Amino acid sequence: MIVVLEKGVSLKDKASIVRLIEQHGGRLLVSELGDTTHIGLVDTVAQALADRIRVMPGVAAIRSEAPPYPQVSREYRETRSLVDVRDVAVGGSEVVVMAGPCSVESATQIATVAEAVADAGARILRGGAFKPRTSPYSFQGLGEEGLYLLAAARDQTGLPVVTEVVATEDVALVATHADMLQIGARNMQNFRLLSEVGAQPKPVLLKRGISSSIEEVLLAAEYVASAGNTHVILCERGIRTFETATRNTFDVSAVPVLKRETHLPVIVDPSHAAGDRELVPALAAAGVAAGADGVLVEVHNDPDSALSDGPQSLTLPGFTEMMGTLKAVADAVGRRIR
Amino acid sequence: MIVVLEKGVSLKDKASIVRLIEQHGGRLLVSELGDTTHIGLVDTVAQALADRIRVMPGVAAIRSEAPPYPQVSREYRETRSLVDVRDVAVGGSEVVVMAGPCSVESATQIATVAEAVADAGARILRGGAFKPRTSPYSFQGLGEEGLYLLAAARDQTGLPVVTEVVATEDVALVATHADMLQIGARNMQNFRLLSEVGAQPKPVLLKRGISSSIEEVLLAAEYVASAGNTHVILCERGIRTFETATRNTFDVSAVPVLKRETHLPVIVDPSHAAGDRELVPALAAAGVAAGADGVLVEVHNDPDSALSDGPQSLTLPGFTEMMGTLKAVADAVGRRIR
Amino acid sequence: MIVVLEKGVSLKDKASIVRLIEQHGGRLLVSELGDTTHIGLVDTVAQALADRIRVMPGVAAIRSEAPPYPQVSREYRETRSLVDVRDVAVGGSEVVVMAGPCSVESATQIATVAEAVADAGARILRGGAFKPRTSPYSFQGLGEEGLYLLAAARDQTGLPVVTEVVATEDVALVATHADMLQIGARNMQNFRLLSEVGAQPKPVLLKRGISSSIEEVLLAAEYVASAGNTHVILCERGIRTFETATRNTFDVSAVPVLKRETHLPVIVDPSHAAGDRELVPALAAAGVAAGADGVLVEVHNDPDSALSDGPQSLTLPGFTEMMGTLKAVADAVGRRIR
Amino acid sequence: MIVVLEKGVSLKDKASIVRLIEQHGGRLLVSELGDTTHIGLVDTVAQALADRIRVMPGVAAIRSEAPPYPQVSREYRETRSLVDVRDVAVGGSEVVVMAGPCSVESATQIATVAEAVADAGARILRGGAFKPRTSPYSFQGLGEEGLYLLAAARDQTGLPVVTEVVATEDVALVATHADMLQIGARNMQNFRLLSEVGAQPKPVLLKRGISSSIEEVLLAAEYVASAGNTHVILCERGIRTFETATRNTFDVSAVPVLKRETHLPVIVDPSHAAGDRELVPALAAAGVAAGADGVLVEVHNDPDSALSDGPQSLTLPGFTEMMGTLKAVADAVGRRIR
Repeated sequence: MIVVLEKGVSLKDKASIVRLIEQHGGRLLVSELGDTTHIGLVDTVAQALADRIRVMPGVAAIRSEAPPYPQVSREYRETRSLVDVRDVAVGGSEVVVMAGPCSVESATQIATVAEAVADAGARILRGGAFKPRTSPYSFQGLGEEGLYLLAAARDQTGLPVVTEVVATEDVALVATHADMLQIGARNMQNFRLLSEVGAQPKPVLLKRGISSSIEEVLLAAEYVASAGNTHVILCERGIRTFETATRNTFDVSAVPVLKRETHLPVIVDPSHAAGDRELVPALAAAGVAAGADGVLVEVHNDPDSALSDGPQSLTLPGFTEMMGTLKAVADAVGRRIR
Repeated sequence: MIVVLEKGVSLKDKASIVRLIEQHGGRLLVSELGDTTHIGLVDTVAQALADRIRVMPGVAAIRSEAPPYPQVSREYRETRSLVDVRDVAVGGSEVVVMAGPCSVESATQIATVAEAVADAGARILRGGAFKPRTSPYSFQGLGEEGLYLLAAARDQTGLPVVTEVVATEDVALVATHADMLQIGARNMQNFRLLSEVGAQPKPVLLKRGISSSIEEVLLAAEYVASAGNTHVILCERGIRTFETATRNTFDVSAVPVLKRETHLPVIVDPSHAAGDRELVPALAAAGVAAGADGVLVEVHNDPDSALSDGPQSLTLPGFTEMMGTLKAVADAVGRRIR
Repeated sequence: MIVVLEKGVSLKDKASIVRLIEQHGGRLLVSELGDTTHIGLVDTVAQALADRIRVMPGVAAIRSEAPPYPQVSREYRETRSLVDVRDVAVGGSEVVVMAGPCSVESATQIATVAEAVADAGARILRGGAFKPRTSPYSFQGLGEEGLYLLAAARDQTGLPVVTEVVATEDVALVATHADMLQIGARNMQNFRLLSEVGAQPKPVLLKRGISSSIEEVLLAAEYVASAGNTHVILCERGIRTFETATRNTFDVSAVPVLKRETHLPVIVDPSHAAGDRELVPALAAAGVAAGADGVLVEVHNDPDSALSDGPQSLTLPGFTEMMGTLKAVADAVGRRIR
Repeated sequence: MIVVLEKGVSLKDKASIVRLIEQHGGRLLVSELGDTTHIGLVDTVAQALADRIRVMPGVAAIRSEAPPYPQVSREYRETRSLVDVRDVAVGGSEVVVMAGPCSVESATQIATVAEAVADAGARILRGGAFKPRTSPYSFQGLGEEGLYLLAAARDQTGLPVVTEVVATEDVALVATHADMLQIGARNMQNFRLLSEVGAQPKPVLLKRGISSSIEEVLLAAEYVASAGNTHVILCERGIRTFETATRNTFDVSAVPVLKRETHLPVIVDPSHAAGDRELVPALAAAGVAAGADGVLVEVHNDPDSALSDGPQSLTLPGFTEMMGTLKAVADAVGRRIR
């Protein structure tokens, strides 16, 4: 349900409506579209308030059937959005493969991997510079130096780069060097961070939380959009269930469900879902067959020596082989991989 | 872990070993392969007994790394098994599409659907004759008459038929008319029924339980195999998780994981996973891309009038359109659909 | 939502309404209360049909807010139901403890345990006679002999007995000897079996399925009630989640939620939830504190030699010690244990 | 499994061992106990490396059975730890009730609630000053002013105060005013924040993440302890499962399981688990009966006007009534509430 407010509604009236909903335990999200304010009500409990809200000052209309994430919904924009990551458009007929190591480890490593994945058809380079690690003796990521190495690899290969940002204080720095900012699964509901990446101009890759519903993913995207940045790409990467045979359960249905709900591009990350490189090509192919607009995979020149996520990283030959299959699958569903 | 017993071991010695394991809370499964008995230990707790078991009378060897489902494991048979459903081989290079209505409703209906799906490339006809329904006023399925209608549709189209059996007392009857017996998700751990279908000669289509782990699926298959019938096809059809956007969460990873573990064919049922016909083609394509040996889908000539599962049944044109995509995806992964 | 039909509505009109709902994918449950038929609609999707149903022949009223399980709901009967198990009333001020071994193993074993648990305050004796086992070399339960031994233990101690029934063909036999019939978690949605126990006069102990929602538990109870038997006791025994530290996750909230929804008694089974005897007293106490009308626990005179479920069975001294705590907790919440 | 390093081991040797484990996909946690370093290996996969690690420079011993969280484990400290929150000891024979509003809203509100809960037997005052909110028009919490109001309420009532800290930059400020710092469920694996609260001297209330396993809770606690602060209280507050009848599934088994594993105090938060004030007293009683060392509940003088979490907040009379029951239940299990 959406409450549409009158243009020029006072801040006080807005706040009164928000308070009423929250006092009754409803969750909501406020979106400004042009000069109109929309309040999306998340809980069905809140819908019980419709009659009271309808007569409050400042309310223009109530749209019962509307999803609570107006800007990112298909209802708001029927046609699919293209998100440009530098010169690569995500969300069009091309299925965009984003590949690279879990962590940037050295100039040689990132250059080697970048060249190899570019040759095999990857269009965007991924690599971690800031890593949240559990031990002071663990490899911490190269931090700012990692960003420089990513930028150098971009210059060398022409591949735009995406890298994760884990803290609000790092957003400006990462946005200076990277072409797209990644919000990791653990931060999908870190509202301060969503706000911060929503206030800078680079596109955002938003990964689904490990126990987040599809509705929550869309609300998080709306949150970024509300902060001013509608260049958001969603990413399915596995959810936590009772099944332990894989690291997470890859919810491939999320792809067609999300694409029915939102105009934003939707990609898949089979590496984190599987946790096992042997399974990655099958899951990547499943994602493309299901309609994904892109694939994000971990690739390493020497996975057995990788400083993180070795077991789920593809080898260079493994990546090249997978790309052959993905190209054929993309063709089969009327898409293409360059 | 597997305990291999000596040939000619006495019933008493077998029982002593089983008792010891069960008294310590271990779960197990006994398989007879040729003239050798294998006891598969399911729980890690049971592995703590290895040293005590090793010295018991009748024990030939303990294989710590072996999975507890010896007959269905890849270790036992490296090459993939072909399961013949009348003249259709499942598990080879062909991806076998099994299609038809949720319920057999009338001679006209099943004939119409059978002709249409055969024309579009389906190789096996599915249809329910015995339905477990929650209301005495619900359509109960045509029962034995449904079996005759399925058989008539087979004669007309040449498609072998698969239908569900829900009770031990119906096994002989269903096995007389059908070419493959389906065990539904709710009965995956109905050991009496598994035993009964394991003792008749027709192949068995075993669907994963809604909250069954992959290990439990393999143990259920081993149970059928232990009863004498190794012609088993496994089917992923969605698991219950926190996500409610789809009827169940389609665990597409189960396809490559199962195919790594077992030599048995593995198919997918996107209809029950999605619960929504709009999502079925994407999930079916995902399953084929992930390596499924077949696809089981619900198709109806008039879904809006179907007596059960209408919303998730494809229309005839919808099925034909999906088959075009599936053929292309099968080709893309080195398989084929006729 | 409930559709109330006119008295004397024709079978044809009933069937038309049922068909309409099912064709649209709605699930439903038909209850006969006195001479009035109520159709409970389970899915919200079915609620979209309200306007069409309202004008169909035979429809007296539509009650939008009513739960789909009329007979077992609090709305139908405000006051709590007492279920008499022979001379023991469950659902009143007394918290009824039901204890005994997983399996009846011998005359001596069941007599010893029955005497001990009676002395410690148990009011009903539990024990398995028919066991669903996964191996032909496993202890199969004593079957009919087990029923005689249970009856003998009842004569000796005065404790009524409850035992599981796993197949429709055994219902009449079990109902002859037992004072209450247990439906196990795996059979909670075995509609044939629910129907069969609903058609005999002994009370029914209905255990929640491992992945069943609370609504599904209530629908299963309504199913038994619809078949004519309203003497049903519900039992929470753990659900399957991502957490593996316990065998299942004991959903203690189910106790107050169920008691708010239904007038039927609600008990807990901490043994199967925990899978570990050390945890059983804490969970039993939690269940009583949360308002459970009874506790079902496994107790064995020699758990380390038990033929099944040894690790989760309390010892006799352990049971006695737990009873002391449970009595105090029952007092603390205004209940009592004799 | 724990790898114990030699005293005086070089940083280089430590790093080599850490790298080896991480390159093989193992997760680990490093704890310094006195002058000895312990590396806890989380994954069983890492255990396969035991033989290689054993012979590496700097390794003193490998303890296969040891849990990977040495400092917080019962093995390290057999007796239960007391955590002093100002003058209130948590973890002893007293069951400590912590109560107060979700958010501090005004001087009058917090003073009113603080007086009332103190009178009814609460020993610690809770109240949110920094709130992570999803809308700019939502009540944001009073921030620093909220901390002053909490401190004033403490001066007035003598109750120590606990309040949540949501960002590293706020830790010092919150630690100045509060007597205990709360880490919310969403931040349970925010390692920077864990590190920061581990480096200040006030006790820490660590809430279980909504999809965190019990092992992950203990690892998070070890993380805080490794940073130097062992004054940690754990809190069960519900996990996400398929069941939607409650906001979350209250995993009461976590109480006895955690108390078997760790010497740290364990409390429960029934308000967030239930999401519904009607259910709170039953769940609180269940938690105390299961052995919880404390209860954290939301209480408001006017829940229907509360600016957040109104529906799950107890009224003042509701709190007083619940306290009567909790005192009796605490007595029943050999504990006490003042």
